[in-house]
Amino acid sequence: MKIAVDAMGGDNAPEAVVCGAVRAAQNYHEEIILVGQEDKIRAVLKAHNAENTPGITILHAPDLVDMHDDPATVLRAKPQSSMAVALNLVKKGEADAIVSAGSTGALLSGATLFCKRIKGVRRGAVAPVMPCKGGQVLLIDAGANTECTPEYLLQFGVMGSLYMQKIKGIANPRVGLVNNGSEDSKGDPLRKEAYALLKAAGEAGHINFVGNVEGRDVPLGACDVAVCDGFAGNVMLKTIEGVAKFMAGAIKDVFTANLGTKLAYLACKKGMDDFRSLFDQDAVGGAPFIGISRPVIKAHGSSNDTAFMNAIRQAIEYKKSGMIEAIEQNVQHMTAE
Amino acid sequence: MKIAVDAMGGDNAPEAVVCGAVRAAQNYHEEIILVGQEDKIRAVLKAHNAENTPGITILHAPDLVDMHDDPATVLRAKPQSSMAVALNLVKKGEADAIVSAGSTGALLSGATLFCKRIKGVRRGAVAPVMPCKGGQVLLIDAGANTECTPEYLLQFGVMGSLYMQKIKGIANPRVGLVNNGSEDSKGDPLRKEAYALLKAAGEAGHINFVGNVEGRDVPLGACDVAVCDGFAGNVMLKTIEGVAKFMAGAIKDVFTANLGTKLAYLACKKGMDDFRSLFDQDAVGGAPFIGISRPVIKAHGSSNDTAFMNAIRQAIEYKKSGMIEAIEQNVQHMTAE
Repeated sequence: MKIAVDAMGGDNAPEAVVCGAVRAAQNYHEEIILVGQEDKIRAVLKAHNAENTPGITILHAPDLVDMHDDPATVLRAKPQSSMAVALNLVKKGEADAIVSAGSTGALLSGATLFCKRIKGVRRGAVAPVMPCKGGQVLLIDAGANTECTPEYLLQFGVMGSLYMQKIKGIANPRVGLVNNGSEDSKGDPLRKEAYALLKAAGEAGHINFVGNVEGRDVPLGACDVAVCDGFAGNVMLKTIEGVAKFMAGAIKDVFTANLGTKLAYLACKKGMDDFRSLFDQDAVGGAPFIGISRPVIKAHGSSNDTAFMNAIRQAIEYKKSGMIEAIEQNVQHMTAE
Repeated sequence: MKIAVDAMGGDNAPEAVVCGAVRAAQNYHEEIILVGQEDKIRAVLKAHNAENTPGITILHAPDLVDMHDDPATVLRAKPQSSMAVALNLVKKGEADAIVSAGSTGALLSGATLFCKRIKGVRRGAVAPVMPCKGGQVLLIDAGANTECTPEYLLQFGVMGSLYMQKIKGIANPRVGLVNNGSEDSKGDPLRKEAYALLKAAGEAGHINFVGNVEGRDVPLGACDVAVCDGFAGNVMLKTIEGVAKFMAGAIKDVFTANLGTKLAYLACKKGMDDFRSLFDQDAVGGAPFIGISRPVIKAHGSSNDTAFMNAIRQAIEYKKSGMIEAIEQNVQHMTAE
């Protein structure tokens, strides 16, 4: 398998990308194509004595996508950017998957433009896996589509369910619709229509629909797949991150208050390491764009080398899982008609 | 001042409501009218030796609003319910404010129907004060209006700003628009239009608009007022509650792991008490319905007596603050034209 990695995307590129790719090549034994400015990539490899790492190749791309570029048009305007060249590899079948920490909007536009959606899928969705009580929950969509139809939400539910089966090994994932109340009758017209579609998909046996879930139910583990429009999903995703950061800081203050609490920390260190690892997004890697005909993994903009290594692992898992074929086989269960 | 309290609303009614009202009467020295089934209210007062508490009176109302009633019509259908009778007291000027832990939808419909909105205000909003890094943030709207216009969001921003000035004593509250990115150009059409209105209100000096804020920025203290449609606001509010509960549970597990960690807890007890108090909604009391021409405080459904006491304190503060008069004086700054 060959994974195309956008070496120039993200806050810590190319250093963290290249180091993460080297670790991924050593650990997962697949081929990794580092796409970007060759001299800079080589300099990082050299600095880390990794020039001859088996499985690592470089493909030169002189241009960069940056945050000031219009996401919708940048990849046409900059065909020699690292992101465009990497996407082209995947489009042409010269790579099996792509990982990038560059602009989410540009990557999503590019994935749709270059790699296309799976036939019958209306919109690709960004779907991060988040920690929750007792496990993990897939949040779909977390930002790709700020305006959704009921059919998009149905598709997010079915595709999300397939992801949690194929990638996370959950036999019968519980699919919940994020709503402003748990009663059947709750929500705006979008939610009410989506509820009816998801309920019908549940009754037909295509998903395990558990009904409406409120914001508080998702972190408390009420479902394995939380279906959302991209606006509310983005608010939820980032609120989880913000509260986790706020509370982790407050806990740190508890333990650093005085000598007694610092000593107390030693007794709690193992538990606190586990606590911190709950929200360790570096261990997760990135978020897949689900619904695209090729595996596309968006790494967090602030990814370090561990996060890149794990994002590459995700891309490999996505390709191997048969996820794309499963969506193709189930696309007839994802229409509103 | 007279506060009408719906003695039959909430999961712990009438016990917690009556006990909270007694404590409020003792602490705040205002008159409290307990509205509901007289025999049940008397039984609670008797059980707590509080039959002769100065400031407490009872007004009999035989009916109950329950969760199966249609919120939009129940108060017309049940004019003798405790909520309808309490709202009528406020409408007729026989009470200055109302506190209820009953159905949010019924209370909001009833507040609008009985007490009316302030002239020029398009919609009342539920606006809980939430903990954040370094202080508190008002979330407006957190669930009353699932579908909003840009003008509603402008009004939420101006009214929220007045609340944080009048009730929380913040001189120049920072008003942020909750969006799916912090750049000016982010969001769906609703957010883009609301951004323009809020920006103009900021430039005219009516509010201190700090621009778009993401979900993660709100718990991290980026603004004093977070403006949201009622759908995303409800998702945010409940996600904050859910993550806080999930993480507090995980921290508890750290300290209860073994004898060493239990001893460590003793050293950290003061800090942990402060940590827990961050998210102690009982200390907050309830959420005001902002934009109604009378003070209406919605207590949490699961309120205990401390939460009711504090919700009554909030009602007293709201009435004394001049908040309603301030909205009346500023309503000309809240139109989209």
